[in-house]
Amino acid sequence: MNFTAQVIAEFLQGKIEGNPDAAINDVAKIEEGRPGALSFLANPKYEKHIYNTRSSIIIVNKDFKPEKEIDATLIRVENAYEAFAALLNLYEENKPRKSGISKLAAVSDSAQLGKRLYIGDFTVIGDGVSIGDDVLIYPQVYIGDNVKIGSSTVLYPGVKVYHNCNIGNGCILHAGVVIGGDGFGFAPDEENNYNKVPQLGNVILENNVEIGANTTVDRATMGSTILREGVKLDNLIMVAHNVEIGKNTVIAAQSGISGSTRIGENCLMGGQVGLGGHIKIANGVKIGAQAGIGGNVKEEGAVIMGSPAFNLSSFYKSYAIFRKLPEIRNQLIDLEREVKTLKKKGDTDTK
Amino acid sequence: MNFTAQVIAEFLQGKIEGNPDAAINDVAKIEEGRPGALSFLANPKYEKHIYNTRSSIIIVNKDFKPEKEIDATLIRVENAYEAFAALLNLYEENKPRKSGISKLAAVSDSAQLGKRLYIGDFTVIGDGVSIGDDVLIYPQVYIGDNVKIGSSTVLYPGVKVYHNCNIGNGCILHAGVVIGGDGFGFAPDEENNYNKVPQLGNVILENNVEIGANTTVDRATMGSTILREGVKLDNLIMVAHNVEIGKNTVIAAQSGISGSTRIGENCLMGGQVGLGGHIKIANGVKIGAQAGIGGNVKEEGAVIMGSPAFNLSSFYKSYAIFRKLPEIRNQLIDLEREVKTLKKKGDTDTK
Amino acid sequence: MNFTAQVIAEFLQGKIEGNPDAAINDVAKIEEGRPGALSFLANPKYEKHIYNTRSSIIIVNKDFKPEKEIDATLIRVENAYEAFAALLNLYEENKPRKSGISKLAAVSDSAQLGKRLYIGDFTVIGDGVSIGDDVLIYPQVYIGDNVKIGSSTVLYPGVKVYHNCNIGNGCILHAGVVIGGDGFGFAPDEENNYNKVPQLGNVILENNVEIGANTTVDRATMGSTILREGVKLDNLIMVAHNVEIGKNTVIAAQSGISGSTRIGENCLMGGQVGLGGHIKIANGVKIGAQAGIGGNVKEEGAVIMGSPAFNLSSFYKSYAIFRKLPEIRNQLIDLEREVKTLKKKGDTDTK
Repeated sequence: MNFTAQVIAEFLQGKIEGNPDAAINDVAKIEEGRPGALSFLANPKYEKHIYNTRSSIIIVNKDFKPEKEIDATLIRVENAYEAFAALLNLYEENKPRKSGISKLAAVSDSAQLGKRLYIGDFTVIGDGVSIGDDVLIYPQVYIGDNVKIGSSTVLYPGVKVYHNCNIGNGCILHAGVVIGGDGFGFAPDEENNYNKVPQLGNVILENNVEIGANTTVDRATMGSTILREGVKLDNLIMVAHNVEIGKNTVIAAQSGISGSTRIGENCLMGGQVGLGGHIKIANGVKIGAQAGIGGNVKEEGAVIMGSPAFNLSSFYKSYAIFRKLPEIRNQLIDLEREVKTLKKKGDTDTK
Repeated sequence: MNFTAQVIAEFLQGKIEGNPDAAINDVAKIEEGRPGALSFLANPKYEKHIYNTRSSIIIVNKDFKPEKEIDATLIRVENAYEAFAALLNLYEENKPRKSGISKLAAVSDSAQLGKRLYIGDFTVIGDGVSIGDDVLIYPQVYIGDNVKIGSSTVLYPGVKVYHNCNIGNGCILHAGVVIGGDGFGFAPDEENNYNKVPQLGNVILENNVEIGANTTVDRATMGSTILREGVKLDNLIMVAHNVEIGKNTVIAAQSGISGSTRIGENCLMGGQVGLGGHIKIANGVKIGAQAGIGGNVKEEGAVIMGSPAFNLSSFYKSYAIFRKLPEIRNQLIDLEREVKTLKKKGDTDTK
Repeated sequence: MNFTAQVIAEFLQGKIEGNPDAAINDVAKIEEGRPGALSFLANPKYEKHIYNTRSSIIIVNKDFKPEKEIDATLIRVENAYEAFAALLNLYEENKPRKSGISKLAAVSDSAQLGKRLYIGDFTVIGDGVSIGDDVLIYPQVYIGDNVKIGSSTVLYPGVKVYHNCNIGNGCILHAGVVIGGDGFGFAPDEENNYNKVPQLGNVILENNVEIGANTTVDRATMGSTILREGVKLDNLIMVAHNVEIGKNTVIAAQSGISGSTRIGENCLMGGQVGLGGHIKIANGVKIGAQAGIGGNVKEEGAVIMGSPAFNLSSFYKSYAIFRKLPEIRNQLIDLEREVKTLKKKGDTDTK
């Protein structure tokens, strides 16, 4: 990566202010600027940094009016953040890609392999597996028998996919993700020994699902655990057997979803949220961090918090008073005293 | 798998109602029925599905009385759920098993290996390891030096077992489980640098322990971290050094147990529960999801909830009022006003 | 390990009481003593065990005065706990170390390797990697391209380090740790599809950082996610993109830190704590288990608890009343009744 302001401005259809030959070979946040780095300014909160950043080129909004002199070369565009993101994507897409099938991988003869694959060292591809084109499978990945993987999907090092699971196109699974482990199902006998209920289902990840490091998605007892198109899961999340997560729902790290629960589309869940089993969450629901949900959430777009969770603003009102409970109790005690006095006085008066 | 109603009824000693030649090659939940699938009906809540399921054969309780016509062939048995589970287990047990020791595994010459083993590609078996008969060790597993593994145990891909740990018979460890990592023990010096306390103990898993994906069980500082017979742990659980978990205790996902804590037998813990260190939990205690426990729970069979946790029904009573705290505060304010008025009035009256 | 009381006393400059030829080949907690084991007594709470422990040698404080006869040989030292820890460290350091580069590892020709390395079976070392002296890399580890690792660092089996990350000297990463996975960054488009924001930064671990099993530390979007010198993380922790954790801060298992948050030096965090994004925590702050922090904590040394968290002793005062809320509500209802009566009476009196 080594580009001049001239080249970048042409790509972004932006306008240069400063030296068109200024060149960058890296990106940096504006507050951590370095010579040779490209930065951007979109949020006015960060404007102060543009006057002393050491970055060489800054992408700014068309209508940005500097209050002081700026050393860096500016490129003015319609939307600075989007333009910057577009550049990052362009860069990302043009990075050299890993390719080829390692001789140190163990690939079953019965696997069907697409074109332009990368299969890294010490990766295992089981019997009857089918893999689409342009898939990147990093080292030490395990793909169980009869797994199907679409095209343009990326499996980072150490991902484990149990037998019979299906992964769509354009998915990204980060290191340590486990797909298709047994659901947690046991039937206690008379002596309270727990006998395992066989877990015969699978996991289906539709297209464009991304899953963060060390997250686990259990296979269904029967049928499928399903993550619909565009679902994004952060790290260390637990998705239990027979769960279904709707399209474009986004879940932050360390949340857990119990068995057979169904989450709607376009939901947002904060970190460390816990959902009970066999419940339904409507579309567009937003759940605050560390919330616990034990029953259905039927209202679309509800915003909830607490454990057990209820309406977010009600929660905050209750919690504000929770913090003052010692005062409240004292007020109550004072009041009791006063009422007692009044009663006595009343008794005396009426005597 | 391809069985007729006739064959299944004979195995279950059940009674056919419908076509004895109806055949199945799969299982499905009754509400997700498919032609060629076997389903069951035990919970009356699901009865409505039996009248339009597309499954070919349904196992039902002896005394089930249909309210409408049913297309599927029925098999009547004493207990539909148990019969169905028995079939699943039979199927599971008769699946082709992985076998043989991969030439791509690294097995120490000093390891003692049982009969009928499966050892997968890129698995490492350390020095002095001993492994019983009928053990399945999937690819990319690491077994440290001097580890002992009983018979009929299954280690899924990527399991890591540190040196000197002991695993019993009939255990199942899912992908990404880590057994025997160092306990979290440090001694701060005068400058607040934390010096590592060597962790010289090990982990003991007794027979029939099952551990979910990416769960971690740390080794003891000295002595052993112990999971007693029949303990079942879900995914992403943390068991710290020197913990002991009693027989047949079951713990849901993402719970954490701090160092040196002892949990009794037959306990049930919900998801995301946290237990402090050096505490004791009596037998048969039930702990609600997301509870936090900082002290001993001495009462056998106690049912607790909240953080810090106390009696579950008391917790729910308090929480119901927590939700109404703004109302309560308003009532209190109103009351203060009224008392003030009464006092003034009283003062006026007695003047 | 096989030492006499004589040898140990000389090493510790301690004084023997009993048989100088008593020998030990193991260590044990005093309450789990075994013949041939060395134990220690520092905490008076454990004194009762010294009178019936079966351990052969006990290290005790100089001024310990037994109340009964003791079978074991005593060694008196200035500080029993420190002396015992010193012995453990000595033992640990003298254990045989793994060494050599496995022929079953895949090491890039362009990697720069230090002296006295151990690189285990099926480990992958990428292009342009640089590794210092005396580093132990266990089997099945993945080191991405251009990663830098200092000297005397230990990577346990299955650790995954993505490209461009830097790891200091004397670090310990336990099994299943993932360093440098993509930060969780997406920009929703008009149809609420989430487009990935490329994650171009890295992770920097300074010297003497220890990280527990299956913990994940995400790479920065731009710049670096940084764990400063001496940071200790327990198992299953999530550190998001662009987080910075100050020197000697210690965090217990299953805690999660959201993106761009900065934690000061010498902080202590309990288990299952959650920190929101873009916040600052001052130096020396102590955070109770399961707390949730949504805003800055500016006061150095603050001790906080709850979700959302506030001052610990205030939290406990509020929580004590939370437990009594049903009583409080009843008191309030009683009071309302009495006030009503008083009002009526007042009305009657003044009529």
